[in-house]
Amino acid sequence: MTYSVDLNCDMGESFGAWTLGQDAAVLPFVTSVNIACGFHAGDPGVMRQTVRAALSHHVAIGVHPGLPDLVGFGRRDMAISPEEAFDMVVYQLGALGAVARAEGGRLHHLKPHGALYNMAATNAALAQAIAEAVHRVQPELVLYGLAGSELTKAGERLGLKTAHEVFADRTYQANGTLTPRRQPDAMVTSADAALAQVLRMVREGKVRSQQGPDVAIRADTVCLHGDGPHALEFAQRLHGALREAGVRLAADFSGAR
Amino acid sequence: MTYSVDLNCDMGESFGAWTLGQDAAVLPFVTSVNIACGFHAGDPGVMRQTVRAALSHHVAIGVHPGLPDLVGFGRRDMAISPEEAFDMVVYQLGALGAVARAEGGRLHHLKPHGALYNMAATNAALAQAIAEAVHRVQPELVLYGLAGSELTKAGERLGLKTAHEVFADRTYQANGTLTPRRQPDAMVTSADAALAQVLRMVREGKVRSQQGPDVAIRADTVCLHGDGPHALEFAQRLHGALREAGVRLAADFSGAR
Amino acid sequence: MTYSVDLNCDMGESFGAWTLGQDAAVLPFVTSVNIACGFHAGDPGVMRQTVRAALSHHVAIGVHPGLPDLVGFGRRDMAISPEEAFDMVVYQLGALGAVARAEGGRLHHLKPHGALYNMAATNAALAQAIAEAVHRVQPELVLYGLAGSELTKAGERLGLKTAHEVFADRTYQANGTLTPRRQPDAMVTSADAALAQVLRMVREGKVRSQQGPDVAIRADTVCLHGDGPHALEFAQRLHGALREAGVRLAADFSGAR
Amino acid sequence: MTYSVDLNCDMGESFGAWTLGQDAAVLPFVTSVNIACGFHAGDPGVMRQTVRAALSHHVAIGVHPGLPDLVGFGRRDMAISPEEAFDMVVYQLGALGAVARAEGGRLHHLKPHGALYNMAATNAALAQAIAEAVHRVQPELVLYGLAGSELTKAGERLGLKTAHEVFADRTYQANGTLTPRRQPDAMVTSADAALAQVLRMVREGKVRSQQGPDVAIRADTVCLHGDGPHALEFAQRLHGALREAGVRLAADFSGAR
Repeated sequence: MTYSVDLNCDMGESFGAWTLGQDAAVLPFVTSVNIACGFHAGDPGVMRQTVRAALSHHVAIGVHPGLPDLVGFGRRDMAISPEEAFDMVVYQLGALGAVARAEGGRLHHLKPHGALYNMAATNAALAQAIAEAVHRVQPELVLYGLAGSELTKAGERLGLKTAHEVFADRTYQANGTLTPRRQPDAMVTSADAALAQVLRMVREGKVRSQQGPDVAIRADTVCLHGDGPHALEFAQRLHGALREAGVRLAADFSGAR
Repeated sequence: MTYSVDLNCDMGESFGAWTLGQDAAVLPFVTSVNIACGFHAGDPGVMRQTVRAALSHHVAIGVHPGLPDLVGFGRRDMAISPEEAFDMVVYQLGALGAVARAEGGRLHHLKPHGALYNMAATNAALAQAIAEAVHRVQPELVLYGLAGSELTKAGERLGLKTAHEVFADRTYQANGTLTPRRQPDAMVTSADAALAQVLRMVREGKVRSQQGPDVAIRADTVCLHGDGPHALEFAQRLHGALREAGVRLAADFSGAR
Repeated sequence: MTYSVDLNCDMGESFGAWTLGQDAAVLPFVTSVNIACGFHAGDPGVMRQTVRAALSHHVAIGVHPGLPDLVGFGRRDMAISPEEAFDMVVYQLGALGAVARAEGGRLHHLKPHGALYNMAATNAALAQAIAEAVHRVQPELVLYGLAGSELTKAGERLGLKTAHEVFADRTYQANGTLTPRRQPDAMVTSADAALAQVLRMVREGKVRSQQGPDVAIRADTVCLHGDGPHALEFAQRLHGALREAGVRLAADFSGAR
Repeated sequence: MTYSVDLNCDMGESFGAWTLGQDAAVLPFVTSVNIACGFHAGDPGVMRQTVRAALSHHVAIGVHPGLPDLVGFGRRDMAISPEEAFDMVVYQLGALGAVARAEGGRLHHLKPHGALYNMAATNAALAQAIAEAVHRVQPELVLYGLAGSELTKAGERLGLKTAHEVFADRTYQANGTLTPRRQPDAMVTSADAALAQVLRMVREGKVRSQQGPDVAIRADTVCLHGDGPHALEFAQRLHGALREAGVRLAADFSGAR
C-alpha cells in the first residue's frame, strides 16, 4: 500500500519593489504552490515570474485569492458578503488563469488566503460562495481547504475535487479543529514532533488531540511555510522524511487513501 | 452592397459605492461594450453586473484594461514598460474572462482604456506588448484600436483580428490622425456633422481632413460615449441614422468593407 | 432657556471621476461637516474643494476618518488592532488638517466613518485608540460619537470635548442604544415622527424607546444624510423646524444643555 | 572657516508585511531622513515607527511625498497636473506632520520622491505647485531639491529655505545637471571617486564635469542610499571622511557656505 500526499506552499507574495518569501529555495521541496493574485499580495509581474518558476519546477499551480487588504496582507477578517466573496474569487481566479495561459501553463487548484481561508473554514455561506466561484469558472480545479472545514464540505456538495489540508506545526482539538492561535498550546514547537505528526496523519489518518485521544483526520495536502528562519530547513526535512517513509509526493491526489 | 459597422461603448465604470455612466440606457443602441476591469474603474461586482446586462442585450463583451490609476481614472499617461503593459493586460483580460465564464458568456474583443489606448496608438513597443498579451492568452479576440494606429498594426502583425475605431465627434488631420485635443478645432461640435462624418466613413471609407482634402480611413467600429448630457441622444440618433441608411450594425466584422 | 444643537453631515465622499452626495445643496442646512480623508472616500483634490465649500458656508470642518476599504466605502467591519486604528486616525487627521491649513481654515472636530464609527461605539479598545489619536495630535478637537457610546466615554476620560450624536431616522432601545438595523423596527419611517423625535431629544433630553418607556439621551449633534431622494428635503425641514422652535443651531457647543 | 553639510537618506519605505531598506543601520550616519507617506511606500504604522526611530537618533524629519503608484514605487513618471501635485503634497505633508506631532516631534523639511522629484527638477509648473504646497501649509520647512533645479528655484521665489542636493554616485554635465541615467557614464562607480567628489563639492563648491571643465555647484545636502549591498558601507565611509576633513554634519543649514 502506497501513501501519497501533496506539499503546498504560498508563493508570489512579493509586491512591486518589495520582496517576500524564499520562493526559489522552497520550490524543490513542494509539489504545489498557491500564488497570490494581487489583492493581498502579488502583482501582475510577480504573478508571471512565479508561474514561470512553478512551471520550471513542474509543481502544480494554484490560485491563492485573498481579501482586498494589501496593507493588512489579507490577514484581517472583513465583513464581506457571500456575493462579494464569490466575485473576488472569480476575479482572482481569472487573472491568474490568464497569466498561466500566457506562460503555457494551466491552473490546478484554488486555496483561499489568510482571513478568507479562516472565515471560509467556519462560515458556511462564504464557503459556499467560494466553492460556487470555482464551480462556475473552472470546475476541474481542486479546492484546497482546512481538513473537515465548511470549505471542503461546500466543495464536495458541488462535486468539486477537494484537498483536505493539515498543518505540521499546529496542534489539534478532540473535535478535529485546530487549537486557536491565541491559546498557549496552539503550536507544535519541536520540529521532530511536527514531522511525526505529519507522518502519522498521512499514514494512519489520525492525529493526537490536545485533550489526549486520537482524532481522525484526512491529510491530502500539508501546508509548508516559505518564510521564517527555519521554514526552509523544515520543508527540506519533511520532504526527505516523507520520501524515506515511502510516501508518494504529488499533487494529483490519485494515490491510495 | 451592404455596409456594416460596430457601435461600441465603454461600460462598467462604476466602482464600489460610486455610479458612473448610463449603462442600461445606452445598451439598446450599441453592438459591443468595453468593460472596465478594476484598474481604472470597475470592481468584481460591477463587472459581473455589467457582463450580465451585456448578455441580456446580446451585445459583444470586450475587455477594457486600463492603467493602475483609480483616482485618475486611467487617463493620465504613466511611463510604464512594455513588460508592465503586457502583464496588466493579461491580468485584466483573465479577470473579465472569468467573470464572463461565470455568467455563461465569453469575451469578444479587447480595447485599451484612456491613456493606455492613447499611448498604444503611437508607441510601437507598448502596442506590441498589448497585442502579444491578447495573442498569448486568447488569440481569437478582436483587438480594437484607433484606426491606422500602432496598436492595430501590432495586432495585424501577430495575425489578430483587429477593429479600426473611428470617432464621430473628433476631427481628423490630413495624415489620418485625430486632431489633438489641445487644438481648438479638435471636436466636431454639431451633431449633424458628426452623424454625416460617421456615415461617410462607413460608406465611403473617407473623412474630410481639417486641412481640406479627404483622407482614407477604415471604420470598423464607432466609439460612443455613455456620459455627458447629450451622449444618449446622440447614440440613439446615430443608431437610427445608420439603420435608416441600410448599414448593418454588428460586432462580427463579417460585412463587406 | 435656549437650546442649542449642531447639525452635521458627511461630505467630500466623491472620489476621482466619481461624484457622490449633494454637498452644495446640503451645506446651507448644516452647522458642521465631516470630510472624508481618502481611505473610504475622498481624494486630495476632493478634500480641498470640500474644505473650500465648507469655509465659504462658515460651517465647522470635521475629520471623517474611515477604514482603508475604498471598494467597500469603509462600511465593512475589519478586524483592525487598536494600534492600527490609532495610526489610521492620526494619518487622516493630519492629511485633512493640512488641506484646511492650505485653505486658511482649521479643524473643529473628528467623527469616525461607517464601520469604524460603529466598531468604536462598542469596542472600548478601539474607542480608546481613536480618542488617543485625537488627544495626541490636536487635543482641542471635539470628538463626535454615538450618544452614550464607548467612543464618547473614551474621549471624556482623556479630557476631550465630545459631541453626543443622535439620529432622526433611527429608533432607540430602552437602554439608550440604537435598534440594530437588521430589526424591522430600526428606522423611523415618517418624516414627521423623525422631526418630533429630534425636537424632543434636543429640548427634553429624552427619546421614547421601542419598549415604551422614555430613555434619557444627550443630543449635542444630529446626523443628517446627504444622499437618498428625500435627504435634502428632510435636512431643510429639520433645519426650519429647529429654528422655528427657537433652538440655536451651532457647532460651538456653548449653549445650555 | 568651517564647512557644513547635511547627509540625508530616504526611510520608512516598508509597507504592510513588506520590509525595505536598512533604516536602523543607516540612521547613525545621517543627519536627516525623508519619510515615505503612504503613496509610493510607507503606511501609517511604518510612518510612526520611522518617526520614532528618527527622533531617538536626533535626526531631522522630512516629508517624502510620492506619486500615487504603490506598485511602481513612485518611480514612473505620471502626467499629473500642477494642481494634483499641490494636492498630493499637501495631503502627505499633513499626514506625516500629524504622525510626528503624535510622537512629540516636528517636521524639518520636504523632499519629493522618485518620479515626482525628477519631474519637479525640470518642470517649472510642477515645481511651483510643490513649493506652493509647502508654503501654504508649513512655510518654515526646508525644501530639498536637486541642486540648481526648477524645484529649488520655485522654493526660493516663494521665500522658502531650500537645500540643494548633490549626489556622490552620479556624474555631472558641464551645465551642472546630472548625466542622464541612460548614458553609460552616468554613475561614479568607484567609492573613492565618490568620496572625493563629495568633499570637493562641499569644500570648493565645484564638481568636475564629464566634459572636462569644473562646474559650480551648491552642496547643502548629500543623498545617501539605504539599500544595495554597499550602501551602508559607503554611508559609513562618507560620514567618517567628512568628519575627518572637519566638515560639520548637520541639517540646520547654519554653517558657512
